[in-house]
Amino acid sequence: MSIRTPLNNLLGIKHPVILAPMAGVSGGALAAAVSNGGGLGLIGGGYGDADWLKREFDAAGDSRIGVGFVTWSLALQPHLLDLALDRNPAALMLSFGNFKPFLRQIRGAQAKLIVQVQTLDQAREAADAGVDAIVAQGTEAGGHGGARATLPFVPAVVDIAQGIPVIAAGGIADGRGLAAALALGASGALCGTTFFASDESLASDTAKQAAVRGSGDDTERSSVFDIARDLDWPSGWNLRTMRNSFSRRWSGDLAGLAQNLAKEQERFKAATEADDIDVAAVIVGEAVDLVRTRAPAQTTLHEMILQAEDRLRCLSQSIAPSQRIK
Amino acid sequence: MSIRTPLNNLLGIKHPVILAPMAGVSGGALAAAVSNGGGLGLIGGGYGDADWLKREFDAAGDSRIGVGFVTWSLALQPHLLDLALDRNPAALMLSFGNFKPFLRQIRGAQAKLIVQVQTLDQAREAADAGVDAIVAQGTEAGGHGGARATLPFVPAVVDIAQGIPVIAAGGIADGRGLAAALALGASGALCGTTFFASDESLASDTAKQAAVRGSGDDTERSSVFDIARDLDWPSGWNLRTMRNSFSRRWSGDLAGLAQNLAKEQERFKAATEADDIDVAAVIVGEAVDLVRTRAPAQTTLHEMILQAEDRLRCLSQSIAPSQRIK
Repeated sequence: MSIRTPLNNLLGIKHPVILAPMAGVSGGALAAAVSNGGGLGLIGGGYGDADWLKREFDAAGDSRIGVGFVTWSLALQPHLLDLALDRNPAALMLSFGNFKPFLRQIRGAQAKLIVQVQTLDQAREAADAGVDAIVAQGTEAGGHGGARATLPFVPAVVDIAQGIPVIAAGGIADGRGLAAALALGASGALCGTTFFASDESLASDTAKQAAVRGSGDDTERSSVFDIARDLDWPSGWNLRTMRNSFSRRWSGDLAGLAQNLAKEQERFKAATEADDIDVAAVIVGEAVDLVRTRAPAQTTLHEMILQAEDRLRCLSQSIAPSQRIK
Repeated sequence: MSIRTPLNNLLGIKHPVILAPMAGVSGGALAAAVSNGGGLGLIGGGYGDADWLKREFDAAGDSRIGVGFVTWSLALQPHLLDLALDRNPAALMLSFGNFKPFLRQIRGAQAKLIVQVQTLDQAREAADAGVDAIVAQGTEAGGHGGARATLPFVPAVVDIAQGIPVIAAGGIADGRGLAAALALGASGALCGTTFFASDESLASDTAKQAAVRGSGDDTERSSVFDIARDLDWPSGWNLRTMRNSFSRRWSGDLAGLAQNLAKEQERFKAATEADDIDVAAVIVGEAVDLVRTRAPAQTTLHEMILQAEDRLRCLSQSIAPSQRIK
């Protein structure tokens, strides 16, 4: 069992699947599980809690993992990059903002630099800077993202990536999605939602249950939960979550939310502490339809690889007859 | 050159590619060109102009084609279905609305019924009704559509389609997209944007040039142009077009457009007649990035098939080594 792409060699992995660095969800145990299964686990650096980051690097033990940061947030706390690079991560992924100020330091540390993009202009910038890999992320992804959809976005990024491996992200939660990503010209897939309900994920039990029951029809991109969390996200990106009573109340009325800010932030905070997911955010993507069991991350990863291999073998047979006729 | 899927037998075609029934663009000549190339061309029935429909059926000559209707609009002019079925279409596609009132008549006429869906509930309804094929359309599609993205939506529809062939739509404009659609479990692809600039398309020369130059980053879903055209679309669907000065002015201010309706409708109508695409709508999808040449539709179709075959052969080799090791 193995699918070989240029990403395998670049990152030293057996399977071209990367765990998305989901803030507060992709901790050391989940990253280690994906890496130990043959992919690459990325710890979610999130919004910069040094103690959390140290703890999760420790939790990963000796596993060969990487870490991902929210670029505009990292710029506010650049010392977190020192902390991360001290742990010799296999790769460092930067998303949402200007990665260039960090380029030299990451290269000096010999970590592979993966930059995530949501527009073709961003992809051109990453390619011109000679990053090691580009994640082309579609709007169907859970968590923060942009407006382009994965299926047409990935080949467009491949066409301007100047040979740099492109990793597809957004909507990929099983072997069919992985096979599709490779068909589009990507060298691998970055997956969050499919690992959200894994045993090793730091998501709450209630949130994992919601993911396993959830429908992609019931997810939505909005700034509601960023406002509720007092996160000052730049325009161009917002957050895909499951819909709940909080998002239904405010996603069409951000001005109203702003007018009731203190009270609603308090309510949101209390709900998050109480694990009340009718108000707190369950941050998953459209591919949540394909997440129907809770399992160890390695089981999910291996099922994904086997299914992708099966699809690719099956499809190569669908073109066989005409080859024989030739 | 041939990719075999269950769709080939169902529709009696050589290649599992269907021309989307783009209103005002997919006329008889384009439908015939796609059918003669081995796919299935669908005339765009649009909003119901009987004379237009007769003319375009005539323009298709003896080619074996089908036709697509906007379901809620067809319900206002059901005689158009008689007109279409009199021409013995190979398939009849219904999108956007309740297809059930038309089910018996279409079955009686022996045309294959293809129903397009944008949510899982709609997919369940189509599967339960036993339609012949289901188009799972992603939001990246040009023209009218919903909110789900193709890559995660297609496998979720396949999982509830009860064995009915699923056709992927939205974002598929080259062989990579077709190969990806098949990897997702679809039996074929429905493509509009990739044929928009074809020689046989009824789009204006100016609009075709805009498509060939356009970027998927510059498309947007909005109700602006439906309001401008005085089309009373039900909620849940809106229109993806290229952005232009008209959409930039009003897409964030539909209430303002409503207040200036008569004047703006007049301005839009005049611009459409004058082929001024800074105000008139160029209706293409995100995959417009992948449309870079103007060619006969058959050339585009055959390049798509060859590239899909190439991708699938290439990918089957990426899994070969582990098979040998076994």
